[in-house]
Amino acid sequence: MNILIIGGAGMVGRKLAERLARDGELGGRAVSSMALYDVVEPAVPASAKVPVRVMTGDLPAAGEAGRLVADRPDVIFHLAAIVSGEAEQDFDKGYRINLDGTRSLLEAVRITGYVPRFVFASSIAVFGAPFPEAIGDEFFSTPLTSYGTQKAICELLVSDYTRKGFLDGLSLRLPTICVRPGTPNKAASGFFSNIIREPLAGKEAVLPVADSVMHWHASPRAAVAFMRHAATLDTGAVGPRRALTMPGLAVTVAEQIAALRKVAGDAVVARIRREPDPFVERIVAGWPRRFDAKRALALGFEPDASFEEIVRIHIEDELGGRIG
Amino acid sequence: MNILIIGGAGMVGRKLAERLARDGELGGRAVSSMALYDVVEPAVPASAKVPVRVMTGDLPAAGEAGRLVADRPDVIFHLAAIVSGEAEQDFDKGYRINLDGTRSLLEAVRITGYVPRFVFASSIAVFGAPFPEAIGDEFFSTPLTSYGTQKAICELLVSDYTRKGFLDGLSLRLPTICVRPGTPNKAASGFFSNIIREPLAGKEAVLPVADSVMHWHASPRAAVAFMRHAATLDTGAVGPRRALTMPGLAVTVAEQIAALRKVAGDAVVARIRREPDPFVERIVAGWPRRFDAKRALALGFEPDASFEEIVRIHIEDELGGRIG
Repeated sequence: MNILIIGGAGMVGRKLAERLARDGELGGRAVSSMALYDVVEPAVPASAKVPVRVMTGDLPAAGEAGRLVADRPDVIFHLAAIVSGEAEQDFDKGYRINLDGTRSLLEAVRITGYVPRFVFASSIAVFGAPFPEAIGDEFFSTPLTSYGTQKAICELLVSDYTRKGFLDGLSLRLPTICVRPGTPNKAASGFFSNIIREPLAGKEAVLPVADSVMHWHASPRAAVAFMRHAATLDTGAVGPRRALTMPGLAVTVAEQIAALRKVAGDAVVARIRREPDPFVERIVAGWPRRFDAKRALALGFEPDASFEEIVRIHIEDELGGRIG
Repeated sequence: MNILIIGGAGMVGRKLAERLARDGELGGRAVSSMALYDVVEPAVPASAKVPVRVMTGDLPAAGEAGRLVADRPDVIFHLAAIVSGEAEQDFDKGYRINLDGTRSLLEAVRITGYVPRFVFASSIAVFGAPFPEAIGDEFFSTPLTSYGTQKAICELLVSDYTRKGFLDGLSLRLPTICVRPGTPNKAASGFFSNIIREPLAGKEAVLPVADSVMHWHASPRAAVAFMRHAATLDTGAVGPRRALTMPGLAVTVAEQIAALRKVAGDAVVARIRREPDPFVERIVAGWPRRFDAKRALALGFEPDASFEEIVRIHIEDELGGRIG
């Protein structure tokens, strides 16, 4: 089968491409070719067993989406988006990329006239406080950011295009990805990854919130597994409600740190410096803490086994098994 | 204050215009002028105490929305939409009018750079079965029509534009309007009004579903009152969740008929002919029956007192007080 990954230069897109290229199969079917698309050129995965084409462009531009689906990819992963902070700062750009880009892609599929599996990366940002203790599958979407609004709108579009038979779509609300590789960034959620990644690399990390803060996490490997499962599961069992909250782990910062201590020891944990930041604390207080992701679990999506496993996955996948 | 009604030729738009024109005030503030806009020319209300301008056009067309808000109306009522059946049959037209038209209007307000009260007519079609026994304010939107999808998307946009301070918006999910004046139409919901309106006019009406079918109703007068209240209530008390389910009456067809009997007598009720239609029964089975509209009630929106009152309102407002 042919696979198209839009957003192939992003972290999850890159890891998904690497996995598919290495496996050469998806859900028991051979992958015959892959195309990776993004605003910056995606990397061709090392050890690719299948032909990989990389493309760059501006998704919402006229004709662009049509070009991408012209050869009728069997599976389209749509992971491209500008992030929350940027969508909040640049209202026009956020709607253009995150809404118009997605709509243009859905339209291109409809006009091309075939029915691919369409996997859309949504986000728990479709939810806005106040929340129940655990957010169930029937809780309403009241986003408190433009990014979350754009994701919620795209979920509705994916469900409607699916209902009309124009494509076979699923929207996956990804948990916060932890441990996110790379360097510390300014995202308010960055510290959830920083306090694991930096100490493991021998560096200091700043923790701006209380140890009691709870949040909803999934490893990059789990996120890739969600995508792969969504590409091949029997959607006959899903029905018309095509947006699914993915199963994560609800852990407190204290539990994150305890897991890090168990895997890597006291000396590594000692590199975490507590420096409360009321600004970050206020933002994080408005975020979801825990979900009851019954539907996704029933459909076979699997969370990480524990936060310790999340730490070990980072060490294996990013540090070649070595702690700094 | 200046008032703009988009969809001024529709039933609720027309009645709202008539009421505002007659009152010459809204929420204690004098109405200085009104503009009515639609695809067909809206009627100038008889007995208008204020200048009324009527305009026709195609809302999503380039420049159109900008023209409408150029003189900065203090209150914008946006009631224009193509109906559910048409949006389902003509996918492009539905998205163009119901989504792009609304978005174009929101954008025009943002670009004009002032903050009007913006009252958007949404619908209980944002909900899709299966439902709980009574649908609460935090139940999720999973529309099963393109029309419902478009309304749900516009609700999200109205909330985001409000959060960003571009306008002061409210989306009102109107119950099914009953008794809808005019002639019987082919809408699957038409019979809820037909079985009251036609017998009262001396004509026969067909009832295609069982007497036990329950649905959620509001009179045209209540719908107009929701709009007027939304235009002037203190939105400081609403918070960022700007979509509100309006309070209706959950009544069965049997209760509708009992109310008709009480108000108009056995001879009128005898004009209802039972003719079950499995096609209509199947559609109606997927519709909401009852809501728990706590938030709207707390904000001062008022339902009709009873279905008998709904029947009496129709006799007063449409039949000049006389039963045929």
